[in-house]
Amino acid sequence: MKYGVVLFPSKKLQDTANSYRKRYDSRYALIPPHITVKEQFETSTDELETLIPTFRDIAHKLKPITINVTKISSFSPANNTVYLKVEKNDDLKTLYEHLHSGPLAQEVEYSYIPHITIGQNLSDDEHLDVYSQLKLVDVNHEEVIDRFHLLYQLDNGSWTVYETFRFGHE
Amino acid sequence: MKYGVVLFPSKKLQDTANSYRKRYDSRYALIPPHITVKEQFETSTDELETLIPTFRDIAHKLKPITINVTKISSFSPANNTVYLKVEKNDDLKTLYEHLHSGPLAQEVEYSYIPHITIGQNLSDDEHLDVYSQLKLVDVNHEEVIDRFHLLYQLDNGSWTVYETFRFGHE
Repeated sequence: MKYGVVLFPSKKLQDTANSYRKRYDSRYALIPPHITVKEQFETSTDELETLIPTFRDIAHKLKPITINVTKISSFSPANNTVYLKVEKNDDLKTLYEHLHSGPLAQEVEYSYIPHITIGQNLSDDEHLDVYSQLKLVDVNHEEVIDRFHLLYQLDNGSWTVYETFRFGHE
Repeated sequence: MKYGVVLFPSKKLQDTANSYRKRYDSRYALIPPHITVKEQFETSTDELETLIPTFRDIAHKLKPITINVTKISSFSPANNTVYLKVEKNDDLKTLYEHLHSGPLAQEVEYSYIPHITIGQNLSDDEHLDVYSQLKLVDVNHEEVIDRFHLLYQLDNGSWTVYETFRFGHE
Protein backbone atom coordinates (compact mmCIF):
# COMPACT_ATOMS: atom_id res chain seq x y z
CA MET A 1 0.00 0.00 0.00
CA LYS A 2 1.14 3.57 -0.63
CA TYR A 3 1.48 5.81 2.43
CA GLY A 4 2.42 9.42 3.09
CA VAL A 5 2.54 11.86 6.00
CA VAL A 6 1.08 15.36 5.93
CA LEU A 7 0.17 18.36 8.05
CA PHE A 8 -3.34 19.69 7.55
CA PRO A 9 -3.37 23.45 8.17
CA SER A 10 -6.33 25.16 9.87
CA LYS A 11 -9.77 25.09 8.27
CA LYS A 12 -9.28 28.76 7.38
CA LEU A 13 -6.08 28.10 5.44
CA GLN A 14 -7.56 24.97 3.82
CA ASP A 15 -10.58 26.99 2.67
CA THR A 16 -8.27 29.64 1.19
CA ALA A 17 -6.18 27.01 -0.59
CA ASN A 18 -9.32 25.30 -1.92
CA SER A 19 -10.60 28.56 -3.41
CA TYR A 20 -7.59 28.32 -5.78
CA ARG A 21 -7.39 24.52 -6.04
CA LYS A 22 -10.99 24.30 -7.27
CA ARG A 23 -9.86 26.04 -10.44
CA TYR A 24 -6.21 25.11 -10.82
CA ASP A 25 -5.51 21.80 -9.07
CA SER A 26 -6.29 18.60 -10.95
CA ARG A 27 -5.91 16.70 -7.64
CA TYR A 28 -8.39 18.92 -5.80
CA ALA A 29 -10.83 16.08 -5.10
CA LEU A 30 -8.23 13.53 -3.99
CA ILE A 31 -6.91 15.05 -0.75
CA PRO A 32 -7.56 18.14 1.40
CA PRO A 33 -5.00 20.99 1.26
CA HIS A 34 -1.87 19.82 3.06
CA ILE A 35 1.86 20.20 3.66
CA THR A 36 3.68 16.97 2.82
CA VAL A 37 6.23 16.10 5.51
CA LYS A 38 7.07 12.57 4.39
CA GLU A 39 7.18 11.58 0.74
CA GLN A 40 5.06 8.70 -0.50
CA PHE A 41 6.41 5.31 0.49
CA GLU A 42 5.31 1.79 -0.28
CA THR A 43 4.89 -0.84 2.41
CA SER A 44 2.61 -3.66 3.55
CA THR A 45 -0.05 -3.11 6.22
CA ASP A 46 1.80 -5.48 8.57
CA GLU A 47 5.09 -3.69 8.02
CA LEU A 48 3.38 -0.35 8.60
CA GLU A 49 2.09 -1.43 12.01
CA THR A 50 5.70 -2.03 13.10
CA LEU A 51 6.46 1.62 12.19
CA ILE A 52 3.61 3.10 14.26
CA PRO A 53 5.66 3.27 17.51
CA THR A 54 8.31 5.25 15.59
CA PHE A 55 5.70 7.77 14.41
CA ARG A 56 4.38 7.99 17.96
CA ASP A 57 7.87 8.61 19.36
CA ILE A 58 8.50 11.39 16.85
CA ALA A 59 5.20 13.08 17.74
CA HIS A 60 5.94 12.71 21.44
CA LYS A 61 9.44 14.15 21.09
CA LEU A 62 8.46 17.25 19.12
CA LYS A 63 6.41 20.32 19.96
CA PRO A 64 3.65 21.96 17.87
CA ILE A 65 5.07 23.72 14.83
CA THR A 66 4.53 27.34 13.87
CA ILE A 67 4.20 27.81 10.12
CA ASN A 68 4.42 31.03 8.15
CA VAL A 69 2.82 31.29 4.74
CA THR A 70 4.43 34.22 2.98
CA LYS A 71 3.57 34.19 -0.71
CA ILE A 72 2.38 32.28 -3.73
CA SER A 73 5.25 30.70 -5.63
CA SER A 74 5.89 28.19 -8.41
CA PHE A 75 8.25 25.26 -9.07
CA SER A 76 8.55 26.41 -12.68
CA PRO A 77 10.63 25.67 -14.74
CA ALA A 78 11.00 22.25 -12.94
CA ASN A 79 7.24 21.81 -13.23
CA ASN A 80 4.09 23.93 -13.39
CA THR A 81 3.01 23.46 -9.77
CA VAL A 82 1.86 26.66 -8.05
CA TYR A 83 1.84 26.72 -4.25
CA LEU A 84 1.47 28.65 -1.04
CA LYS A 85 5.03 28.98 0.17
CA VAL A 86 5.55 27.78 3.74
CA GLU A 87 8.77 29.22 5.14
CA LYS A 88 11.24 26.49 5.99
CA ASN A 89 12.09 26.69 9.69
CA ASP A 90 13.98 24.52 12.15
CA ASP A 91 10.85 22.79 13.46
CA LEU A 92 9.71 21.74 9.98
CA LYS A 93 13.23 20.65 9.07
CA THR A 94 13.51 18.58 12.24
CA LEU A 95 10.16 16.91 11.66
CA TYR A 96 11.07 16.11 8.04
CA GLU A 97 14.44 14.68 9.09
CA HIS A 98 12.88 12.50 11.79
CA LEU A 99 10.33 11.20 9.28
CA HIS A 100 13.08 10.22 6.85
CA SER A 101 15.62 8.53 9.11
CA GLY A 102 16.05 5.29 11.07
CA PRO A 103 13.29 2.81 10.24
CA LEU A 104 11.62 5.59 8.20
CA ALA A 105 14.63 6.22 5.93
CA GLN A 106 13.82 6.50 2.24
CA GLU A 107 15.40 7.93 -0.86
CA VAL A 108 14.06 11.33 -1.85
CA GLU A 109 14.48 12.93 -5.21
CA TYR A 110 14.34 16.59 -4.27
CA SER A 111 15.44 18.76 -1.38
CA TYR A 112 12.59 19.61 0.97
CA ILE A 113 10.55 22.72 0.14
CA PRO A 114 7.52 22.96 2.45
CA HIS A 115 4.46 24.09 0.52
CA ILE A 116 0.70 23.81 0.04
CA THR A 117 -0.06 23.02 -3.59
CA ILE A 118 -2.83 25.15 -5.10
CA GLY A 119 -2.31 24.42 -8.80
CA GLN A 120 -0.75 21.56 -10.77
CA ASN A 121 -0.74 19.85 -14.15
CA LEU A 122 -1.27 23.24 -15.76
CA SER A 123 -0.26 23.73 -19.37
CA ASP A 124 2.57 26.20 -19.92
CA ASP A 125 0.09 28.83 -21.10
CA GLU A 126 -2.26 28.28 -18.16
CA HIS A 127 0.66 28.38 -15.76
CA LEU A 128 1.95 31.64 -17.21
CA ASP A 129 -1.52 33.14 -16.98
CA VAL A 130 -2.39 31.85 -13.49
CA TYR A 131 0.98 32.44 -11.88
CA SER A 132 1.44 35.94 -13.27
CA GLN A 133 -1.76 36.88 -11.39
CA LEU A 134 -1.31 34.81 -8.24
CA LYS A 135 2.26 35.89 -7.52
CA LEU A 136 0.88 39.39 -6.89
CA VAL A 137 -1.55 38.16 -4.19
CA ASP A 138 -0.63 39.41 -0.75
CA VAL A 139 -0.30 36.36 1.50
CA ASN A 140 0.76 36.62 5.11
CA HIS A 141 -0.43 34.02 7.55
CA GLU A 142 0.95 32.40 10.67
CA GLU A 143 -0.50 29.49 12.59
CA VAL A 144 0.44 26.62 14.87
CA ILE A 145 0.01 22.99 13.78
CA ASP A 146 -0.19 20.50 16.62
CA ARG A 147 -0.43 17.11 14.85
CA PHE A 148 0.50 15.15 11.76
CA HIS A 149 -1.46 12.51 9.85
CA LEU A 150 -0.43 9.23 8.27
CA LEU A 151 -2.47 8.54 5.11
CA TYR A 152 -2.83 5.73 2.59
CA GLN A 153 -3.86 5.91 -1.03
CA LEU A 154 -6.92 4.21 -2.52
CA ASP A 155 -7.06 2.81 -6.05
CA ASN A 156 -8.78 5.94 -7.36
CA GLY A 157 -5.82 8.07 -6.24
CA SER A 158 -7.55 9.61 -3.20
CA TRP A 159 -6.10 9.49 0.31
CA THR A 160 -7.67 8.24 3.54
CA VAL A 161 -6.27 9.00 7.00
CA TYR A 162 -4.85 6.00 8.82
CA GLU A 163 -3.82 7.67 12.04
CA THR A 164 -3.26 11.03 13.70
CA PHE A 165 -0.28 11.83 15.91
CA ARG A 166 -0.34 14.85 18.22
CA PHE A 167 2.92 16.59 18.99
CA GLY A 168 3.94 16.35 22.63
CA HIS A 169 1.48 13.52 23.36
CA GLU A 170 2.46 9.98 24.23
CA MET B 1 -17.46 24.25 12.74
CA LYS B 2 -19.29 21.11 11.59
CA TYR B 3 -17.94 17.80 12.88
CA GLY B 4 -18.80 14.15 12.44
CA VAL B 5 -17.41 10.74 13.43
CA VAL B 6 -16.89 7.85 11.02
CA LEU B 7 -15.33 4.44 10.61
CA PHE B 8 -13.22 3.98 7.49
CA PRO B 9 -13.40 0.35 6.34
CA SER B 10 -10.35 -1.42 4.87
CA LYS B 11 -8.76 -0.16 1.66
CA LYS B 12 -10.28 -3.16 -0.11
CA LEU B 13 -13.82 -2.27 0.93
CA GLN B 14 -13.26 1.42 0.21
CA ASP B 15 -12.04 0.55 -3.29
CA THR B 16 -15.14 -1.59 -3.86
CA ALA B 17 -17.42 1.17 -2.62
CA ASN B 18 -15.64 3.74 -4.79
CA SER B 19 -16.15 1.62 -7.92
CA TYR B 20 -19.88 2.33 -7.44
CA ARG B 21 -19.60 5.80 -5.94
CA LYS B 22 -17.65 7.09 -8.94
CA ARG B 23 -20.79 6.64 -11.02
CA TYR B 24 -23.63 7.05 -8.53
CA ASP B 25 -22.54 9.20 -5.59
CA SER B 26 -22.64 12.97 -6.01
CA ARG B 27 -20.51 13.28 -2.84
CA TYR B 28 -17.82 10.91 -4.13
CA ALA B 29 -15.08 13.57 -4.08
CA LEU B 30 -15.94 15.01 -0.65
CA ILE B 31 -15.10 12.11 1.69
CA PRO B 32 -13.72 8.55 1.41
CA PRO B 33 -16.18 5.65 1.80
CA HIS B 34 -17.23 5.47 5.45
CA ILE B 35 -19.71 4.29 8.07
CA THR B 36 -21.09 7.26 10.00
CA VAL B 37 -21.16 6.54 13.74
CA LYS B 38 -21.97 10.05 14.98
CA GLU B 39 -24.22 12.39 13.07
CA GLN B 40 -22.97 15.83 12.08
CA PHE B 41 -22.82 18.25 14.97
CA GLU B 42 -21.92 21.91 15.21
CA THR B 43 -19.47 23.23 17.77
CA SER B 44 -16.60 25.67 18.20
CA THR B 45 -12.97 24.52 18.02
CA ASP B 46 -12.49 25.41 21.69
CA GLU B 47 -15.59 23.51 22.70
CA LEU B 48 -14.46 20.54 20.64
CA GLU B 49 -11.15 20.33 22.48
CA THR B 50 -13.08 19.84 25.73
CA LEU B 51 -14.79 16.81 24.16
CA ILE B 52 -11.56 15.08 23.07
CA PRO B 53 -11.07 13.28 26.42
CA THR B 54 -14.60 11.87 26.07
CA PHE B 55 -13.79 10.48 22.61
CA ARG B 56 -10.56 9.05 23.99
CA ASP B 57 -12.40 7.37 26.88
CA ILE B 58 -14.89 5.80 24.51
CA ALA B 59 -12.11 4.42 22.30
CA HIS B 60 -10.25 3.14 25.32
CA LYS B 61 -13.32 1.42 26.75
CA LEU B 62 -14.34 -0.40 23.56
CA LYS B 63 -12.73 -3.18 21.56
CA PRO B 64 -12.25 -3.36 17.77
CA ILE B 65 -15.56 -3.92 15.96
CA THR B 66 -16.32 -6.71 13.52
CA ILE B 67 -18.53 -5.55 10.67
CA ASN B 68 -20.45 -7.69 8.21
CA VAL B 69 -21.48 -6.27 4.85
CA THR B 70 -24.28 -8.45 3.54
CA LYS B 71 -25.99 -6.78 0.58
CA ILE B 72 -26.70 -3.63 -1.35
CA SER B 73 -29.82 -1.88 -0.10
CA SER B 74 -31.70 1.41 -0.50
CA PHE B 75 -33.44 3.93 1.77
CA SER B 76 -36.16 4.33 -0.86
CA PRO B 77 -38.92 5.50 -0.55
CA ALA B 78 -37.52 7.76 2.25
CA ASN B 79 -34.78 8.88 -0.17
CA ASN B 80 -32.86 7.54 -3.15
CA THR B 81 -29.67 6.66 -1.29
CA VAL B 82 -28.20 3.26 -2.20
CA TYR B 83 -25.77 1.66 0.23
CA LEU B 84 -23.73 -1.34 1.30
CA LYS B 85 -25.70 -2.68 4.23
CA VAL B 86 -23.62 -3.14 7.39
CA GLU B 87 -25.38 -5.51 9.77
CA LYS B 88 -26.26 -3.81 13.02
CA ASN B 89 -24.58 -5.61 15.88
CA ASP B 90 -24.09 -4.95 19.59
CA ASP B 91 -20.63 -3.44 19.15
CA LEU B 92 -21.82 -0.91 16.58
CA LYS B 93 -24.87 -0.10 18.68
CA THR B 94 -22.74 0.42 21.78
CA LEU B 95 -20.32 2.69 19.92
CA TYR B 96 -23.20 4.73 18.48
CA GLU B 97 -24.83 5.07 21.90
CA HIS B 98 -21.60 6.18 23.55
CA LEU B 99 -21.08 8.77 20.81
CA HIS B 100 -24.57 10.21 21.38
CA SER B 101 -24.75 10.41 25.17
CA GLY B 102 -23.32 12.44 28.06
CA PRO B 103 -21.39 15.45 26.75
CA LEU B 104 -21.87 14.05 23.22
CA ALA B 105 -25.69 13.94 23.41
CA GLN B 106 -27.47 15.32 20.35
CA GLU B 107 -30.87 15.04 18.75
CA VAL B 108 -31.00 12.61 15.86
CA GLU B 109 -33.73 12.46 13.28
CA TYR B 110 -33.61 8.78 12.33
CA SER B 111 -32.93 5.48 14.04
CA TYR B 112 -29.41 4.21 13.41
CA ILE B 113 -28.89 2.09 10.29
CA PRO B 114 -25.16 1.43 9.78
CA HIS B 115 -24.27 1.68 6.09
CA ILE B 116 -21.70 2.71 3.49
CA THR B 117 -23.32 5.02 0.95
CA ILE B 118 -22.53 4.15 -2.67
CA GLY B 119 -25.18 6.24 -4.46
CA GLN B 120 -27.14 9.38 -3.58
CA ASN B 121 -29.04 12.30 -5.08
CA LEU B 122 -30.22 9.98 -7.85
CA SER B 123 -33.37 10.85 -9.74
CA ASP B 124 -36.26 8.39 -9.31
CA ASP B 125 -35.55 6.92 -12.73
CA GLU B 126 -31.83 6.59 -12.10
CA HIS B 127 -32.50 5.05 -8.70
CA LEU B 128 -34.90 2.50 -10.16
CA ASP B 129 -32.38 1.61 -12.84
CA VAL B 130 -29.30 1.49 -10.60
CA TYR B 131 -30.90 -0.22 -7.63
CA SER B 132 -32.67 -2.90 -9.67
CA GLN B 133 -29.21 -3.99 -10.87
CA LEU B 134 -27.21 -3.49 -7.68
CA LYS B 135 -29.60 -5.31 -5.38
CA LEU B 136 -28.71 -8.50 -7.27
CA VAL B 137 -24.98 -8.11 -6.56
CA ASP B 138 -23.67 -10.78 -4.23
CA VAL B 139 -22.01 -9.02 -1.30
CA ASN B 140 -20.54 -10.88 1.62
CA HIS B 141 -17.67 -9.35 3.50
CA GLU B 142 -16.46 -9.39 7.09
CA GLU B 143 -13.69 -7.32 8.60
CA VAL B 144 -12.49 -5.82 11.85
CA ILE B 145 -12.29 -2.05 12.35
CA ASP B 146 -9.93 -0.93 15.09
CA ARG B 147 -10.36 2.86 15.16
CA PHE B 148 -12.71 5.75 14.53
CA HIS B 149 -12.04 9.20 13.12
CA LEU B 150 -13.31 12.65 14.08
CA LEU B 151 -13.68 14.87 11.00
CA TYR B 152 -14.57 18.49 10.27
CA GLN B 153 -16.13 19.96 7.18
CA LEU B 154 -14.52 22.58 4.94
CA ASP B 155 -16.46 25.31 3.14
CA ASN B 156 -16.49 23.28 -0.10
CA GLY B 157 -18.34 20.45 1.66
CA SER B 158 -15.34 18.10 1.90
CA TRP B 159 -14.17 16.55 5.16
CA THR B 160 -10.72 16.61 6.78
CA VAL B 161 -9.69 14.28 9.62
CA TYR B 162 -9.12 16.03 12.94
CA GLU B 163 -8.11 13.04 15.02
CA THR B 164 -7.99 9.25 15.09
CA PHE B 165 -8.95 7.16 18.11
CA ARG B 166 -7.90 3.51 18.33
CA PHE B 167 -10.15 1.12 20.21
CA GLY B 168 -8.55 -0.29 23.34
CA HIS B 169 -5.80 2.35 23.41
CA GLU B 170 -5.43 5.04 26.04
